[in-house]
Amino acid sequence: MEGDMALIYGVTFFSVVMALAFALWLHLWVKRQPVKNPVIREVSGLIKAGANTFMRKEYRVLAVFAGVAAVLLVLFLPTPLWRTQNAWRNLAMAVSYLAGTAFSAIAGKMGIIVATSSNGRAAEAAQKGIKPAFLIGFRGGAVMGLTVVGISLFGVAAVLLAFGDTAISLGFSFGASSLALFAKAGGGIFTKTADVSADLTGKVELGIPEDDPRNPAVIADNVGDVAGMGADLFDSNVAAMTSALVIASSLEASTGANTAMVFMYAALGLIASIIGIATARIGKGGSPTRALNASTYVTSGAFVALTALATLLIEGFSWRIWGASAVGLLVGVIIGITTDYFTDDSKPIVQRVAHASRTGSAFTILSGVSYGFISALPAMIGIAVSALAAYQICAPLGESYALFGIAMAAVGMLSIVGMIISNDAYGPIVDNARGLAEMGDLGENTIRVADELDSAGNTVKAVTKGFAIGAAGLTVISLLGAYLSEANAALMEAGRAVLTGFDIMDPVVFFGVLIGAAVPAVFSAMLILGVDKNAQRMVAEIHRQFQEIRGLREGKPGVRPEYDRCIDIATAGALRELIPAGLMAIIATLIVGFIGGPGAIGGFLLGNIVSGLLLSLFMSNAGGLWDNAKKYIEAGHEGGKGSDAHKAAVVGDTVGDPFKDTAGPSINTQITVVSLVASLMSSLFVAFSLFG
Amino acid sequence: MEGDMALIYGVTFFSVVMALAFALWLHLWVKRQPVKNPVIREVSGLIKAGANTFMRKEYRVLAVFAGVAAVLLVLFLPTPLWRTQNAWRNLAMAVSYLAGTAFSAIAGKMGIIVATSSNGRAAEAAQKGIKPAFLIGFRGGAVMGLTVVGISLFGVAAVLLAFGDTAISLGFSFGASSLALFAKAGGGIFTKTADVSADLTGKVELGIPEDDPRNPAVIADNVGDVAGMGADLFDSNVAAMTSALVIASSLEASTGANTAMVFMYAALGLIASIIGIATARIGKGGSPTRALNASTYVTSGAFVALTALATLLIEGFSWRIWGASAVGLLVGVIIGITTDYFTDDSKPIVQRVAHASRTGSAFTILSGVSYGFISALPAMIGIAVSALAAYQICAPLGESYALFGIAMAAVGMLSIVGMIISNDAYGPIVDNARGLAEMGDLGENTIRVADELDSAGNTVKAVTKGFAIGAAGLTVISLLGAYLSEANAALMEAGRAVLTGFDIMDPVVFFGVLIGAAVPAVFSAMLILGVDKNAQRMVAEIHRQFQEIRGLREGKPGVRPEYDRCIDIATAGALRELIPAGLMAIIATLIVGFIGGPGAIGGFLLGNIVSGLLLSLFMSNAGGLWDNAKKYIEAGHEGGKGSDAHKAAVVGDTVGDPFKDTAGPSINTQITVVSLVASLMSSLFVAFSLFG
Repeated sequence: MEGDMALIYGVTFFSVVMALAFALWLHLWVKRQPVKNPVIREVSGLIKAGANTFMRKEYRVLAVFAGVAAVLLVLFLPTPLWRTQNAWRNLAMAVSYLAGTAFSAIAGKMGIIVATSSNGRAAEAAQKGIKPAFLIGFRGGAVMGLTVVGISLFGVAAVLLAFGDTAISLGFSFGASSLALFAKAGGGIFTKTADVSADLTGKVELGIPEDDPRNPAVIADNVGDVAGMGADLFDSNVAAMTSALVIASSLEASTGANTAMVFMYAALGLIASIIGIATARIGKGGSPTRALNASTYVTSGAFVALTALATLLIEGFSWRIWGASAVGLLVGVIIGITTDYFTDDSKPIVQRVAHASRTGSAFTILSGVSYGFISALPAMIGIAVSALAAYQICAPLGESYALFGIAMAAVGMLSIVGMIISNDAYGPIVDNARGLAEMGDLGENTIRVADELDSAGNTVKAVTKGFAIGAAGLTVISLLGAYLSEANAALMEAGRAVLTGFDIMDPVVFFGVLIGAAVPAVFSAMLILGVDKNAQRMVAEIHRQFQEIRGLREGKPGVRPEYDRCIDIATAGALRELIPAGLMAIIATLIVGFIGGPGAIGGFLLGNIVSGLLLSLFMSNAGGLWDNAKKYIEAGHEGGKGSDAHKAAVVGDTVGDPFKDTAGPSINTQITVVSLVASLMSSLFVAFSLFG
Repeated sequence: MEGDMALIYGVTFFSVVMALAFALWLHLWVKRQPVKNPVIREVSGLIKAGANTFMRKEYRVLAVFAGVAAVLLVLFLPTPLWRTQNAWRNLAMAVSYLAGTAFSAIAGKMGIIVATSSNGRAAEAAQKGIKPAFLIGFRGGAVMGLTVVGISLFGVAAVLLAFGDTAISLGFSFGASSLALFAKAGGGIFTKTADVSADLTGKVELGIPEDDPRNPAVIADNVGDVAGMGADLFDSNVAAMTSALVIASSLEASTGANTAMVFMYAALGLIASIIGIATARIGKGGSPTRALNASTYVTSGAFVALTALATLLIEGFSWRIWGASAVGLLVGVIIGITTDYFTDDSKPIVQRVAHASRTGSAFTILSGVSYGFISALPAMIGIAVSALAAYQICAPLGESYALFGIAMAAVGMLSIVGMIISNDAYGPIVDNARGLAEMGDLGENTIRVADELDSAGNTVKAVTKGFAIGAAGLTVISLLGAYLSEANAALMEAGRAVLTGFDIMDPVVFFGVLIGAAVPAVFSAMLILGVDKNAQRMVAEIHRQFQEIRGLREGKPGVRPEYDRCIDIATAGALRELIPAGLMAIIATLIVGFIGGPGAIGGFLLGNIVSGLLLSLFMSNAGGLWDNAKKYIEAGHEGGKGSDAHKAAVVGDTVGDPFKDTAGPSINTQITVVSLVASLMSSLFVAFSLFG
């Protein structure tokens, strides 16, 4: 396998180089497109400056956090410094952790570069029609997708190659996801503070259009879209690969083939994404939604075919593992499609919620909450079935291979993550483009084109989100497996009996389950309250500006609102609120671990996964549903814009905004972080716990 | 122990007779109070007739369901008829099941008798002040509490005495809870359909007061309060006793002392409730909230003292078990107090939500949802800690005693259920009384008194609900234990290896966990959608009446709305929607059991418990929070009645109504039913399953 391993690393780095080269080419292509309108140039510059300022301030806070965490890692992990013979290993852990945070920060920064170089160009291209504007949005998104996945694969491979120790790889993953947790929370609070305040004061109170330049919050809103898109799936992808690597390395009689397989599949996923992006086409006047979905399917097909070829050619690769990863991908696609059913406005659910809005906003909320809950069921079944199927397929290879099968199902589901991130990044770009078209006064027709592109972004987002949550679900199951191997290694070292599993009839485990289940609820509540409090401040500021700045309300030429004040409020609030929620989740893990020991943590992770999946599916889908119900009414149904139904739907959308863009997507990362903390701390929980 | 057992049954039946006799005395006392106002007599009669009609129609549907279920029981349980040597046992199961449904129906009927004989009298007494009106409301509630608990204890004891087989007792509990499930769903949909429609059309659209006789939905609203109060805690109480009995009978070398202890503690709880009710006092102009809470504390103290005495005197009673039940009761009280913190309008949370309402209804919803999620945490911790503590306290008695300890903690928490039901039934009585005072034109002052009594009911309800959910949480843990003993009995009979527990790393168990967790979400969504759809129909009917009936809007003397039409709509909708949700939960259990076998069902129950607890705590507390935020604003804060904040708070209250009165309390029963189905079906799951 030695020679093969070199080949595998070769393929891995080759795919990374290819992805980055292709991303660079796409980026230069985007930059070559013209942007002439002076207003658009100016506003796009304002957005860029605002986003950079926010991110600089945010990362300054997070750098302090990461520094403190790195010091703690050197002191305590993997073994407390005063009990270890190998202090270098602790240092390696801290270095690996810091590398993870740095990679995550780069991914966030990439988001701003990509979005601010594409948004204005897409707006101008929209004057010429859907096709050229779509291509700019799509290629801009692809730059993001390819870069993020490329560097994450590079990072995981480089850390394993450098330290040759999967426990240290967990540190890298922890760095990536802990930074992503805070960045998502901060970005999510920023963006929704601005969005909600802009909508409430603009659309509802004053009756001015979305993105109207008179609205003081309009720039902050656009900044938020860009700053929030950062490292959305970066951490899941790293976590999926890392947990697969940990399980692979724990397999008895491992020939290295399993580790090789993880890298090979990830590399082929990246190549499949390149194929999907390169072949994406939209006909003249064609549907952008269809184009985005088609490229997802092309990528999926390419992945299945390429991995089959690799399994055929490379000795030691098992067809059963290939089957598990194919099942994972298939279920991911199915989850995406069912999610689409609940959030697409051409399907009955959205229309029912829109219809219920006629009776008042209470019914918008009640029906949206209900369908949001129901929408969680297909995805939960999908995750349950794919885990069971992956397990059954791989169990004949040997006991621990079954768990490896689940991990590879997650890797399979996330294999096309490059494509997913591309589609996801497309959304904010065209959302921004729509705002710029409005502010640059490009005319009704251009705004209509931008609207269509934006709406496609919303629809596709639902599919990619379903996908992301499904993948996170499988990943955390394999992280639970990774935790079990880490805990057992620690127990063996301590000369104690290993855990065969976590029995829910054991009250220590049960104790963990109940507390773990409450954590995602409290976590999301803290984030939503952050938005809620912050938006109240910003609404007050907007009211002040409309009262004090003469001529603003009437749109007198030359009169501009003080955009900066709104950006400052969103920034200050986001910085204040981003740390507590994430810290609460980490501290809850430590408390449960030091009270109940490794068994309680197993239960804690289970409870956390289960309620986290349920709540994130509920929140993401209900939010998307309300957003599209509002858009459906705005398109002229149920009384159209300005009707009572529309007002009710705006309330639904406002509630849904922090659900789907602040709390929902952050829960995934919260689960990942907590699982990694558990794995990293397992030896300490074994050594020091009250009931363990 | 033989002689002791006779003594125990003697004490049990003696306490039942005492409770029923005391209830009869209280009922006659209430009946002696005057009710002279002709309007009140008439409207009270309308409410009674409406409630009886609804219940008759509902029970006709449920009788068909119960009949079908009884036939299935005879055919399949505990052992399929074609494989059993003992067909009588199947017949006994069906008889026991039918007895359970009958007892549950009696409890529901009691609710109507009690409420409709007290509501008008309480309204009239309110003219003389708080004290006499409170006493009627309180004693009316106590009739309900004592009767329900008395007959449930009688039923459990009689079934065990008659059949001497705890598996058959599970059938009784299943009968009680399956009927309660459908009755709660039906009653909850009925009451909230009427409440929501009356509020939306009356308060919001027309600006007429609550309970205004011009509103066509006003009688249906009052009917709903009465019809919904039925068998709220009846099924939890039966399930707690039954699961404790199942575990007691499975204890090795059982001397009968454990079974004796279950009955003794339940009987002493009933006696403690009598003491609490008999000593309840309210000073002149005193606070009704304080009086209600004081009687809860007196009951708790009496229970702890009486059980300590019994443990001292009776041979074979263990102090450790006593400790577990005392811990259960203590934690129940603590959960009640923390729940109160989140829903009491003199505390900061409610005031913050009221303040957020100034910015619009979206913020009412967002802040209420957030605090609702956070409020789940203390109760989850409380349940987790009490389960762990009960286990640790009783573990030294032997392996299986630890689980018995948890069951007895649930029995302890539910020991004061007589008091809890009394306080709970007090609510709808004084709520009705308030409506009657308004409709009978008893004047501002009387309405103010009735308002104060009503508000006390709301506050206390939060405490009792927290209590009920906590107790249900512990009960289902012990039901999980009961299920394990049943499944193992079946596995042993089949000559297969018994389960030592349910390992969450087993993907079959994990599969069950994920599906089980989704069920309460879908279940509540179905109920809420039922209210939502139904209320839209009723709102349309109310609009029609205001348009077509001349002089109704203006309140022309002699012009009456068609109350019956609204009652009919609520009834028809409730009957249509009450079966599907409950059936979905039962069928999901069967599907998971027949696919995954006994292990998957263990996981399914865990997932169901965990997400059910989380969602029911969230929904009950968020609903109570919104209700009281609205009341707080109506009391003159944040702009008072008619302000924008008030309008936003009404939206919150409307969303909260089906949360707290339809979905929230039904989830408890859904969990219980599913757990009992699992226990009853365990032998079939062992015999026929795909992966088990």
